[in-house]
Amino acid sequence: MTEILLEDMQQALEEMGKKAVSASRVLASMKTQDKRDLLNAMADAILEDTEKIKTANAIDLENGRKNGLSSAMLDRLALDDKRIRGMADGLRTVAAEDDPVGKILSTTERPNGLKIEKISVPVGVIGIIYESRPNVTADAGGICLMAGNTVILRGGSEAFNSNQAIATAMNRAGVACGLPDGAVQLLPWTDRRAVTLLVTLDKYVDLIIPRGGEGLIRAVTRDATIPVIKHYKGVCHTFVDKNADFNKALKIVENAKCQRPGVCNALECLVVHREIADDFLKKLYELIGDKVKMHGDAEVRKILPAIEAGEPDYNTEFLDYAMNIKIVADIDEAIAHINTFSSKHSESIITECEENAAKFFAAIDSSCVYHNASTRFTDGGEFGMGAEIGISTDKLHARGPMGAKELTIYKYIIHGEGQIR
Amino acid sequence: MTEILLEDMQQALEEMGKKAVSASRVLASMKTQDKRDLLNAMADAILEDTEKIKTANAIDLENGRKNGLSSAMLDRLALDDKRIRGMADGLRTVAAEDDPVGKILSTTERPNGLKIEKISVPVGVIGIIYESRPNVTADAGGICLMAGNTVILRGGSEAFNSNQAIATAMNRAGVACGLPDGAVQLLPWTDRRAVTLLVTLDKYVDLIIPRGGEGLIRAVTRDATIPVIKHYKGVCHTFVDKNADFNKALKIVENAKCQRPGVCNALECLVVHREIADDFLKKLYELIGDKVKMHGDAEVRKILPAIEAGEPDYNTEFLDYAMNIKIVADIDEAIAHINTFSSKHSESIITECEENAAKFFAAIDSSCVYHNASTRFTDGGEFGMGAEIGISTDKLHARGPMGAKELTIYKYIIHGEGQIR
Repeated sequence: MTEILLEDMQQALEEMGKKAVSASRVLASMKTQDKRDLLNAMADAILEDTEKIKTANAIDLENGRKNGLSSAMLDRLALDDKRIRGMADGLRTVAAEDDPVGKILSTTERPNGLKIEKISVPVGVIGIIYESRPNVTADAGGICLMAGNTVILRGGSEAFNSNQAIATAMNRAGVACGLPDGAVQLLPWTDRRAVTLLVTLDKYVDLIIPRGGEGLIRAVTRDATIPVIKHYKGVCHTFVDKNADFNKALKIVENAKCQRPGVCNALECLVVHREIADDFLKKLYELIGDKVKMHGDAEVRKILPAIEAGEPDYNTEFLDYAMNIKIVADIDEAIAHINTFSSKHSESIITECEENAAKFFAAIDSSCVYHNASTRFTDGGEFGMGAEIGISTDKLHARGPMGAKELTIYKYIIHGEGQIR
Repeated sequence: MTEILLEDMQQALEEMGKKAVSASRVLASMKTQDKRDLLNAMADAILEDTEKIKTANAIDLENGRKNGLSSAMLDRLALDDKRIRGMADGLRTVAAEDDPVGKILSTTERPNGLKIEKISVPVGVIGIIYESRPNVTADAGGICLMAGNTVILRGGSEAFNSNQAIATAMNRAGVACGLPDGAVQLLPWTDRRAVTLLVTLDKYVDLIIPRGGEGLIRAVTRDATIPVIKHYKGVCHTFVDKNADFNKALKIVENAKCQRPGVCNALECLVVHREIADDFLKKLYELIGDKVKMHGDAEVRKILPAIEAGEPDYNTEFLDYAMNIKIVADIDEAIAHINTFSSKHSESIITECEENAAKFFAAIDSSCVYHNASTRFTDGGEFGMGAEIGISTDKLHARGPMGAKELTIYKYIIHGEGQIR
């Protein structure tokens, strides 16, 4: 690839920003059915372009092999007929969901006769920065579009050709449906400097959503002048209280850790009340000790075989068949431990004591707080939101699973009859 | 003042962050009446410390005179009995307002029996960076506290001693009401590097609100790794359509420009439909031409005496008895002009045509869009929100006037009976 001058890239990006804004103005006032037709047309366009997408993907796979990508990485990158159909189906599913735009959120009539309506509107232009899997191009794009936002995408360099083919199909369908060119755009460079330019394009882009590892997210947050919604790691806790129903507790801990350990809502640290620790942990070890590596301090290691772990290890996100264990004196110590080490994603208390459940709900500062259920439910689909664009660990704008509704904001429209101050 | 080492400042700030988080955990679960008592106790403490605050203020005023502050600046800085009483009264007013925390925003019951409640909670710790007027210490602090947030304040260096005295009184009242030390803290340095440290203290601070000039806000946005809600300038427009009632239009334009030209919701650019431009502008000039400096292009200058203005001038925020004028062919050109040059604050259409009003409401991308009313109403008090902490020109989390409610976020609490995935 030839070297691109920074100012050329900047100028091209400025043009992309203008196009995204123009398209967003039209998209913002599209009726629900027209947006549904748009997403369905994009699904059709992706299916029509199946061969083109596969050809582009073959180039990425070939490059990946040359660059020594692992077989797991190559598998994530690969697109076949089934995965391409999956992208199209995903767009149709989003198309069928509720339109979050144009809802009257509140109305107020003031003593001077002004009638103030608060109405949901799209955010505008969303920049999405992601790694690896090319289906994110369609999935994330679709949710943004249903909420009335246009997108500027920056995918992983390994999937550059695949992403370009998918975005091209989607944008073409946009134009066919009457949108100006620019509803779905992909940065045409793999150059890393382009990310920095994108996250400072505050004149045109309203929101940045980075999807990927912690390094990517930290870099984006550091450089951005545009608001960022972060999806950091999930260091999720489950606290087994002394009044826990062991049957529930064992099933829930097993599920939270083992059902799919590589995801952000999986359990990473088990917190156990000291009074029942010996009994509970021995039963747990019988249940999952053969497949899950336990980590803990001396007290834990007296009860079961565990790898030595201390304070600095408690924020580890294993994403694997491994977990930390912490024994506490009471619910207050459990809450303090969790609020210190959690990533504010999802935590659960297993107890038959309603009072303790209420205390846990009130005191835990995380996006999703559970009583007697697995943290694995933190997911847009499981919450009944439909598709999700990620799970926010931030505390501004949106927390927890983010669907199309979380990609809207509001404006006030004020009806007057000549009122002055 | 002796030079402080960066690492010492960083360490001290880290301690402040920890204290703010500890206090926020207690404040977050305080009942409404306890928060009301807290704010009233802070008002009492400020009154008790009147003499101390005046003594501190006298030092700031003396330094200000030595440093050549203008008399307007000195006036903004000065605190007398009346202004100190005003701060206390402001806190009592906020204390009497609705508590935005603990509201059930929605409930969902899922097919698997999980009951998901979405509940409003405080954001956590808010950093406020402001210039000049020391009453912001009490005003902004009070709104944040009512929404259950603790604050780390960084005021203007000119008001350092005054701010310190006010914050000390408030924090003392906090401790007396049972909060850990640290509910209201002021950065103890005037060193500019402290601002950069504060806006990157993302381990403890959840939100930064800069209040001040554009330079301050841009610098904070550039450096921050914490979400920032911006209150940029207000380049507000009023569009007088061809179907406008001239009587309403003249009164509204006069009000929007002249009632208080130095504020962000004042009119900065008048947009006029060409068909009525000659007639309307002549009448307007008769009404306010003696006190308002008009700026416009050749077409405008054929109608009334105006200072030459072109494209690059259209985003000027005069904050004075001066305004831009733009003549347009139709409502579409008006909308395009406004969406290009506005700061997304407040815009108004004056028309008797409901269809055009609806079009303007739908197409204008600003936080507050008016029909037949003055943009001067964009204000927390006028919107019936009570006190406001500012007016957001951002498109994330909150737009327009921000009261205590806008300083909250939500969490999901999920009631289960042993559900696993």
